[in-house]
Amino acid sequence: MTKIKSTDHNLAPIYIQISQDLRNRILKGKYKQGDQIPTEEELVIEYGVSRMTVRNAVTELVNEGLVYRVHGKGAFVAQAKLQRSLNKITGFHQDMLEIGLNPKAKVVEFEKRGPTEKECHKLNLRKVNKVFSIKRIRFIDDIPYGYQELVVPEFQVPDLASLNLEKESLYSHLKLIGKPIKNAEQRMEALMNEHVATILGIDKNIPFFFFNRISYLENGTPVELLNSYFRGDKFSYKISLSNE
Amino acid sequence: MTKIKSTDHNLAPIYIQISQDLRNRILKGKYKQGDQIPTEEELVIEYGVSRMTVRNAVTELVNEGLVYRVHGKGAFVAQAKLQRSLNKITGFHQDMLEIGLNPKAKVVEFEKRGPTEKECHKLNLRKVNKVFSIKRIRFIDDIPYGYQELVVPEFQVPDLASLNLEKESLYSHLKLIGKPIKNAEQRMEALMNEHVATILGIDKNIPFFFFNRISYLENGTPVELLNSYFRGDKFSYKISLSNE
Repeated sequence: MTKIKSTDHNLAPIYIQISQDLRNRILKGKYKQGDQIPTEEELVIEYGVSRMTVRNAVTELVNEGLVYRVHGKGAFVAQAKLQRSLNKITGFHQDMLEIGLNPKAKVVEFEKRGPTEKECHKLNLRKVNKVFSIKRIRFIDDIPYGYQELVVPEFQVPDLASLNLEKESLYSHLKLIGKPIKNAEQRMEALMNEHVATILGIDKNIPFFFFNRISYLENGTPVELLNSYFRGDKFSYKISLSNE
Repeated sequence: MTKIKSTDHNLAPIYIQISQDLRNRILKGKYKQGDQIPTEEELVIEYGVSRMTVRNAVTELVNEGLVYRVHGKGAFVAQAKLQRSLNKITGFHQDMLEIGLNPKAKVVEFEKRGPTEKECHKLNLRKVNKVFSIKRIRFIDDIPYGYQELVVPEFQVPDLASLNLEKESLYSHLKLIGKPIKNAEQRMEALMNEHVATILGIDKNIPFFFFNRISYLENGTPVELLNSYFRGDKFSYKISLSNE
């Protein structure tokens, strides 16, 4: 029996933990696109929980498009794309932790320098200001999922160099120092980028979601300029729209 | 002098009309990526308006990423991508009209049929219900910009067949019959699709934004299931995010 119980490390409800476990198996290729995942009866036995609990766990995966149910047959793997929300401002690290995955980052460049003309404009800086410029590859386990170029004004986060940017979240750190992000403007593109594909070591014909984000503090000052490239074969994005 | 004045056809402020005119020239390739657009002085003479007005017109294009300013030099074409908003539920037709473009549609399939199992599930239908299934190519002038597969329950819009889906907006029609869309759930992917590229007659290596949208009426019933493919080389999407 696969042990699932609430611990200090994972306080999520049991059905969420089971959905995390199944999601991990799909992402690791244990169940491939088109494969049937174990039946409810099998999952009941495997996890030692009620049928309602395993049904709720599978419904989580159905709702995010990872699996689909066929009436009278069971649940099958749709495609191994992770779904992220566009309705909230969160970072990769936090999003992946929340669904029980193992996010990692590799800093491939970290420098302190003067801002470019464009950065001065976008971040409301003067030429005399300094910025931290950070380039990171984003992984889940050891698979590259994305690449990010981050520019942060030095005066906003003077101690940024002391942060472990391979393990810690910038957004959590901003909260910690009393500068939580209030809002952001984001532009999205769908494109291919040979340079970024090479950095990630993936096929150059894989399309990326490209995001250009400027995030602002409560006082209205911009705190980051972030260019992100996330793999189109690994992610989908969900958004709730309202006419109100 | 290019004549720009408020008429019955276009009641937008003059600076918006000038921005529409300049946007059209960029999309039609009169000014190409990297080209300098006419200077403020030249635009003042061409349109016979104040410097402030032409500056506001150019700022519109800067804000949507179509052009960028270089200090002391002027404004240059960044890339000919149209920016659409992800913050509101609107259709292609309405969005393009609003920025002064000429949207067209070609219906390549229109049928009334029974719903698939998936459509029953997504649109809350029974097997005995009927749906309208409509496939349309979306153009601006005569350039293909996207492809959409629309499924609408017959009982929601029984007179749908009488609507001219090459010229009229479904969303406007829904408002007209007292069934405005209240909210929608949308999933986005970045992908390539050879089948759709062939329908559009474009290079199969152009990435698409793929949208899967389910729209709901005020009473909570689903009124459309829409799969859209919009060209990644022609569109970007903008979203405002808030932590509130």
